[in-house]
Amino acid sequence: MDVFEDPESTREEILAAAYRALCTHGYAELTMERIGEEFEKSVSLVYHHYDGKDDLLLACLEFMLENYRTDAGCDPPSDPREAMERFCDRLLLVDAPSEAQQFVRALVELRGQAPHNPDYREYFTRSDRFLQERIETIIEAGIEQGVFHEVDPERAAGMLHTVFAGAFFRYATAEDTEWLDDVREEIRAYNRRTLYVPSVEDEAP
Amino acid sequence: MDVFEDPESTREEILAAAYRALCTHGYAELTMERIGEEFEKSVSLVYHHYDGKDDLLLACLEFMLENYRTDAGCDPPSDPREAMERFCDRLLLVDAPSEAQQFVRALVELRGQAPHNPDYREYFTRSDRFLQERIETIIEAGIEQGVFHEVDPERAAGMLHTVFAGAFFRYATAEDTEWLDDVREEIRAYNRRTLYVPSVEDEAP
Repeated sequence: MDVFEDPESTREEILAAAYRALCTHGYAELTMERIGEEFEKSVSLVYHHYDGKDDLLLACLEFMLENYRTDAGCDPPSDPREAMERFCDRLLLVDAPSEAQQFVRALVELRGQAPHNPDYREYFTRSDRFLQERIETIIEAGIEQGVFHEVDPERAAGMLHTVFAGAFFRYATAEDTEWLDDVREEIRAYNRRTLYVPSVEDEAP
Repeated sequence: MDVFEDPESTREEILAAAYRALCTHGYAELTMERIGEEFEKSVSLVYHHYDGKDDLLLACLEFMLENYRTDAGCDPPSDPREAMERFCDRLLLVDAPSEAQQFVRALVELRGQAPHNPDYREYFTRSDRFLQERIETIIEAGIEQGVFHEVDPERAAGMLHTVFAGAFFRYATAEDTEWLDDVREEIRAYNRRTLYVPSVEDEAP
């Protein structure tokens, strides 16, 4: 995942090592020793900074969320329709780089800890709220500008968000992927049908 | 979960014990010893039948799928619209019993093993295909009877299936649940808008 590509500090190097070790071994087989092996400097430094694998993996998740927040921004988009399409494409892995599957698998594995681990649950509750707000902001901007219908932003955002969660979950945990194209098409159709106010372009032959 | 409520054989008793132990301890902390503790007869019997916790948990999943298959059936429904609504309600946990959350959490935890465990991945690929086929059968029956529009059954089923997967995933792994009502409403609207041919009833005031 690109957020881990150019670590800028020892902390980021450790987080990148934890991410690589998670991708290689999977959560269940992951140990601090194995994370230490991925970290080129000193194994004891890893122990110095983090109490255990969950502490470290949660720090990884925070780091990813921070990056995503910076990337996605909080302001209403100037072109809501374009923003919505980019957002959907991204969350439905359109033209995703080859390492995306590894990233999605790592994320789903960590989220798979949440049923029994309140720290992961707290994190994913928070990251879900962020995602939800981001989608609502785009929809509200669209309504404000008159380019989206006056839908209930919360409801439409909840639906889209759930589709994205399902796509990640399925993509990481089953072999088939043909359904992904179908979902992309259906979401495009959903957006056209329920969100976008038809523009002159849409009506061109 | 009701499939585990009245075990009819030693095998089913062991599967029920594994399910209970998974709900109590979570996958990462689950051991054969802990499963043995939940099984009232003899711990050694558990070892006699299964090689390890994954072997046993995969047998649990097969048992649930078998039951679900019997329950859902394979025949085209006589009333496709009613079948679709029941199906969506069930998969979106409408009026779900109080133990549903436990069940969904257990299922999501096991599916969370799939990124790194090909046996779980194989299972979930298979169970996804079953679900997909079931939804397609309902849509095809609806089209056949002229009560559904002539949509692409695979595409609509892929979309619904992904929403259900996302709902399970979110429900099991985050605290908030208000979004679930929004998703139910949106799916009802989706079905009305894209699947159902309006009937006289729909047009009543």
